[in-house]
Amino acid sequence: MSGSMRTGVWLVGARGSVATTAVAGAAAVRSRLGTTAGCVTELPDFQTAGLPGYGDLVFGGHDVAAITLPKRAEQLAHGGVVPPDLPGLVHDDLAAADAEIRPGTPRVDDGLTQAEIAELLAGDLRSFRERHELVRVVVVNVSSTEPPAVRSGAHESLPALEEALGSGRPVLPPSSLYAYAALRAGCPYVDFTPSTGARLPALDELARRQRLPYAGSDGKTGETLVKSALAPMFAARGLRVLAWSGTNLLGGGDGANLADPTAAVSKTVSKERAVRETLGRPVEGEVHIDYVSELGEQKTAWDHILFEGFLGVRMSMQFVWQGYDSALAAPLVLDLARLVARAHEAGEVGPLAPLAFFFKDPLATDDHRLQVQYETLRAWATSLGAGEPQRGPGTDRGPHPSSSPQQGSPA
Amino acid sequence: MSGSMRTGVWLVGARGSVATTAVAGAAAVRSRLGTTAGCVTELPDFQTAGLPGYGDLVFGGHDVAAITLPKRAEQLAHGGVVPPDLPGLVHDDLAAADAEIRPGTPRVDDGLTQAEIAELLAGDLRSFRERHELVRVVVVNVSSTEPPAVRSGAHESLPALEEALGSGRPVLPPSSLYAYAALRAGCPYVDFTPSTGARLPALDELARRQRLPYAGSDGKTGETLVKSALAPMFAARGLRVLAWSGTNLLGGGDGANLADPTAAVSKTVSKERAVRETLGRPVEGEVHIDYVSELGEQKTAWDHILFEGFLGVRMSMQFVWQGYDSALAAPLVLDLARLVARAHEAGEVGPLAPLAFFFKDPLATDDHRLQVQYETLRAWATSLGAGEPQRGPGTDRGPHPSSSPQQGSPA
Amino acid sequence: MSGSMRTGVWLVGARGSVATTAVAGAAAVRSRLGTTAGCVTELPDFQTAGLPGYGDLVFGGHDVAAITLPKRAEQLAHGGVVPPDLPGLVHDDLAAADAEIRPGTPRVDDGLTQAEIAELLAGDLRSFRERHELVRVVVVNVSSTEPPAVRSGAHESLPALEEALGSGRPVLPPSSLYAYAALRAGCPYVDFTPSTGARLPALDELARRQRLPYAGSDGKTGETLVKSALAPMFAARGLRVLAWSGTNLLGGGDGANLADPTAAVSKTVSKERAVRETLGRPVEGEVHIDYVSELGEQKTAWDHILFEGFLGVRMSMQFVWQGYDSALAAPLVLDLARLVARAHEAGEVGPLAPLAFFFKDPLATDDHRLQVQYETLRAWATSLGAGEPQRGPGTDRGPHPSSSPQQGSPA
Amino acid sequence: MSGSMRTGVWLVGARGSVATTAVAGAAAVRSRLGTTAGCVTELPDFQTAGLPGYGDLVFGGHDVAAITLPKRAEQLAHGGVVPPDLPGLVHDDLAAADAEIRPGTPRVDDGLTQAEIAELLAGDLRSFRERHELVRVVVVNVSSTEPPAVRSGAHESLPALEEALGSGRPVLPPSSLYAYAALRAGCPYVDFTPSTGARLPALDELARRQRLPYAGSDGKTGETLVKSALAPMFAARGLRVLAWSGTNLLGGGDGANLADPTAAVSKTVSKERAVRETLGRPVEGEVHIDYVSELGEQKTAWDHILFEGFLGVRMSMQFVWQGYDSALAAPLVLDLARLVARAHEAGEVGPLAPLAFFFKDPLATDDHRLQVQYETLRAWATSLGAGEPQRGPGTDRGPHPSSSPQQGSPA
Repeated sequence: MSGSMRTGVWLVGARGSVATTAVAGAAAVRSRLGTTAGCVTELPDFQTAGLPGYGDLVFGGHDVAAITLPKRAEQLAHGGVVPPDLPGLVHDDLAAADAEIRPGTPRVDDGLTQAEIAELLAGDLRSFRERHELVRVVVVNVSSTEPPAVRSGAHESLPALEEALGSGRPVLPPSSLYAYAALRAGCPYVDFTPSTGARLPALDELARRQRLPYAGSDGKTGETLVKSALAPMFAARGLRVLAWSGTNLLGGGDGANLADPTAAVSKTVSKERAVRETLGRPVEGEVHIDYVSELGEQKTAWDHILFEGFLGVRMSMQFVWQGYDSALAAPLVLDLARLVARAHEAGEVGPLAPLAFFFKDPLATDDHRLQVQYETLRAWATSLGAGEPQRGPGTDRGPHPSSSPQQGSPA
Repeated sequence: MSGSMRTGVWLVGARGSVATTAVAGAAAVRSRLGTTAGCVTELPDFQTAGLPGYGDLVFGGHDVAAITLPKRAEQLAHGGVVPPDLPGLVHDDLAAADAEIRPGTPRVDDGLTQAEIAELLAGDLRSFRERHELVRVVVVNVSSTEPPAVRSGAHESLPALEEALGSGRPVLPPSSLYAYAALRAGCPYVDFTPSTGARLPALDELARRQRLPYAGSDGKTGETLVKSALAPMFAARGLRVLAWSGTNLLGGGDGANLADPTAAVSKTVSKERAVRETLGRPVEGEVHIDYVSELGEQKTAWDHILFEGFLGVRMSMQFVWQGYDSALAAPLVLDLARLVARAHEAGEVGPLAPLAFFFKDPLATDDHRLQVQYETLRAWATSLGAGEPQRGPGTDRGPHPSSSPQQGSPA
Repeated sequence: MSGSMRTGVWLVGARGSVATTAVAGAAAVRSRLGTTAGCVTELPDFQTAGLPGYGDLVFGGHDVAAITLPKRAEQLAHGGVVPPDLPGLVHDDLAAADAEIRPGTPRVDDGLTQAEIAELLAGDLRSFRERHELVRVVVVNVSSTEPPAVRSGAHESLPALEEALGSGRPVLPPSSLYAYAALRAGCPYVDFTPSTGARLPALDELARRQRLPYAGSDGKTGETLVKSALAPMFAARGLRVLAWSGTNLLGGGDGANLADPTAAVSKTVSKERAVRETLGRPVEGEVHIDYVSELGEQKTAWDHILFEGFLGVRMSMQFVWQGYDSALAAPLVLDLARLVARAHEAGEVGPLAPLAFFFKDPLATDDHRLQVQYETLRAWATSLGAGEPQRGPGTDRGPHPSSSPQQGSPA
Repeated sequence: MSGSMRTGVWLVGARGSVATTAVAGAAAVRSRLGTTAGCVTELPDFQTAGLPGYGDLVFGGHDVAAITLPKRAEQLAHGGVVPPDLPGLVHDDLAAADAEIRPGTPRVDDGLTQAEIAELLAGDLRSFRERHELVRVVVVNVSSTEPPAVRSGAHESLPALEEALGSGRPVLPPSSLYAYAALRAGCPYVDFTPSTGARLPALDELARRQRLPYAGSDGKTGETLVKSALAPMFAARGLRVLAWSGTNLLGGGDGANLADPTAAVSKTVSKERAVRETLGRPVEGEVHIDYVSELGEQKTAWDHILFEGFLGVRMSMQFVWQGYDSALAAPLVLDLARLVARAHEAGEVGPLAPLAFFFKDPLATDDHRLQVQYETLRAWATSLGAGEPQRGPGTDRGPHPSSSPQQGSPA
């Protein structure tokens, strides 16, 4: 990688806990104020991948919330997610990012079609890229989880979608409208939530036409991370999992949103996938997500796994995971922004299967075995660095037409 | 693999819980009385490896205990390790194996040198192989854990060892004396315990001279199995493990033995290895092994892992593992007997690094990442089946001179 | 207590796990085949209370299930609730009790009014008492949990109730119909479930008219038992409980019934009561009851308690309870039968508040502090033994008119 | 209680975590900066006991550490024990207490006899009392746990002790030397540690001669608190505890001290007492205390309880307690200071058995049932308030000769 690496990171949900921690964290790392624990791309395996540095990242985003990033960071410090003195130390970086936050979709009610809204969103992205002379902008959705979307015929092809977008009736859920706008503006898109995002045939078609990569879905930060390490253990030992039950207690904004049962559906479906797909069959047991406001930014998950061993004997394993979701997610958001930026530079197009390591519900693969995912990621990143990237399953690649800010405009 | 596959499995500690469960279990599987859950070699990945079938296995062993296998199996059924009615159903198989059990080392006090004792032990093995017309006998040590052995010059080369063995003073710990006898008799040796076994330069030299493979050490059945699945998870995510503490509560004979602090040293050292070697540095925290007689055959382990995430935030994970060690170990003993028999047939010589998946303290490798170990095992087993075995790290292989019972006698 | 003590124990749900374990257990204790661990009335504190002996108990009951008690006991032995050999050893006692089981309410569909059904049920009780020459019969409801009942005007007074019962429309839920029949037949009634049972003003009126005691509701066997020991601990130390969350995993028939959300409502409401009433305010947190069929008769509960200490610091406690509900409940059923029989003999009338120790949702008191409940129980039982019983709060007592089988007939 | 209530609280180990949290906390409560959660004496039950207010407490103490209280408080804020901004807000109170800290026993090496050292320590107490015009000073030992002391004849009577103290050889462990000095100076003494403190016949004799009360031993803050709530639960239900195992992970200064096996002996003996004495027999199982420096001020304890229910079925309970020991201990130190001051005023003499609620190893009673202890405490405090105090078991009381600062001087 040569020349300027100044890379935009555009966060949908830019004033949420994850986004704020990512912005504050990047500033802290840049200024050597904090450790990079939890950053995968800081491991020795990724030092030759040619990724943009933390100092090359410029932040902006969409959000409807009014609170400023410096204020939000203070709340997070109070909740234990970031060190108490950090908000003060990185105040200027937070304020700079805050100045790049634009209001999000609620402009819908102004009587605009989704096509018109998308054009406004894309305009925000193009303007951000030009104003800061960025080589590219990666859009990452870290907003609240949506309820499951109803699929319609308009989702099946790009022409059908574009016709419907101009019709006046809403056809895309917000996450997909952002994805559409990002791709239109020539920006790779990452969905860190279980929302629909770019997972529609019409959007895949658009990404390929624009020669853009995209990634998702649903960052694997805690309980599901552990599941994807443990389920393969049982499988590899021939121990038959009979039931896998889980309860997640969480406060914060994420907890309040997931207390809404319709949003929770998207989440629990995504959480159950790793076990079912690793074991190759459905397994008894429920997953609960309980909102416990007093937990603040902390999350506690308990899982109980009942399994059968030799000659039918019953045994069990339980685990308790106690973490800060935002502190677990933020470094992964930075990892994804860096890796997807590099993938875009290298000309990768379509869903990035080698990034499955980061997701509960990965695109273009159903292998949830964490170590296998890691090896795939490592090999892919190494190949990106070598300039002869290995083709990840489900990922096309050809010569990238251009990485100039103009690239996306024809869309 | 062609012709007769009748394979001997000689168990050192043949009347212990693990051995009894293995013998009863093999009989149950043969008669379709029990499930093979927990048997790795029953997974689809191993169906082309050309392994001997459960019906091909003939059991014998050494033990000083007087209790018979049918009686021991009843105790295990009472303790929940095997189904209540199984001992009755496989009584004849248990009695047949019991008739092949010979008294072990305590003949030492008869004023014999260790060289003479080894010759008696080797004679038991040769006689067992001839009497049952077995193509080979795999010796598996499942006896009690020994205290750590003191290394001496006599361990460093085969000539030095053989001179010392004839001297009248004991130079080898029991596990190594059994290994020496096994190798002398032309039998591959597996150490399922953390005892010294074949891990001495002099015994490696003997194995290579005899063109025999060997494997070990210390079967990875419960808490350490989980550690080897979780430690790589933390490593792959860049989450910094600050402390890993564990308490194991266990009853049964194993618990009583490990209540002896000198024996426990071998065990806790072995248990701590996976975390330290996976993370590449020592980690704070103690491992306790407590004897709780009332737990009977059950084992409960609690582990607490403190780790650091982004910007230094502290988080934790705990797990509780509740299992029956014998039920977890027995199918692995059968797996190892089958795999090592096949490796011997295929001409593998020396320490079998591809079997690291099974061990807490694997020979000839220090990679403890469970999924990586599994992939290595799978590839190796596939190559064994294809007749063009991949060479495992640290494993020599050449044409096997002979698999006749006579092969070992010149040693 | 003098003279014959032969006491009937009539179990509603007589072929369920709890009832079967109670019958098998009483037989085992009588024959000195099993320990009385879990029997409160076997503690030294209760040896002077003048309770009927296990040998004095005669079992019968209502159930619609077709399976026999000896068969059901074998299932329980298989599930680990009773020792494997017990069903064989107490077969005759099980068969004798089985011969005293009559079909329950489903005779409703024969076009009878609830008044007529009640008369049939009461007839079963009278006939049982006379046939076995019992001094009294205690009816204990151990059937499945009902959905919460809708209160109606007919529940408010005995005349209103009796009029409605004759009307042809069903006015009482099954548990209350059994309570009505029991009281009509002169039998004390105990509700071991969270169903409505005798908790209606009309039934209280009937109990007082019949000079009968009654007790309930919802046996406190596991998670709630622990709650009632821990909630007072936090209260006594001034530690402010912020949230108390719980997940219960259970198989067996109880689990299957509670998987029905309408029945589960009764249960979770009852389970939350101890914490709320002990702490004197509602506390955040949900209680889940998940049916996990593979757990069989076992139950696992996880509770997470978040609390605030000095100067607002947050701390937490978690517990995991792993038990067999039937094995925990059965000895309490025997305790209750013995204590209520003695209370009846002593002339206690109305709700037995001193039995709160046994219940999640105790009658006539809202003190859930376990040790306080124990002291109350101990003192009351001592007074019963001394013949000068202390009056429990909410419990009337006067000279008991008669303990002859005829007593109930006028009702 | 009338007139001035200015009461001294003299902390042995005045710069440790517990002492610092107590001083900072009292200041916070006085200034309404923090909640009194965790303060038993703030419960409604204690509002009529006539206790000195937080504003009446004046702090001083002995310590050999050089760090100042304001500095120590900042460390505790960093470790999460007190709110981040508290040290700044109560700086003046901390500094004032810090000015009253005198160096502790290490003056020994100056060639003084223990009698002479005691006189110096008592002088510090008298001077503190006079300088601040305090009605009394309660001495509370919150220093590090000592190894178990060797009993000698000199401990058995006051004359024998006083002779030995003058002999030049050390006869009392530090905690007892402080107790001796306190009693000599007319100050009630509380031992919050498991050290010997006032638990010697000679010191009891001195306390009675001085007409002083004393209390102890070993504050019950976390795991043992839970034990004393749960052990009676098992006992009251007739559930037979078979084994109780525990592991405590703790950092901080307390952890480092307890990593010293000789000090840990005192602690584990004290921790095991509640279960053994409540259940009336020894119970299998070990208690581990592991120093995990990375835990800082946090403590995590895991307990596993194996118990037997009806007919011998095995069940289990586990709990995990995650707290800050200093935050749990500090309000109890304030409670004890207030209650013991009031007891002294009311003329109580000797060991204060009604304070058993606060201690792992209570004086003059072996009832460890938490709720029973609470009721005893409540009744006693109420009686103190009423001016007709109930006599606690083991506690003498008579007219108190004087509560003037001079009272102790003749000793």
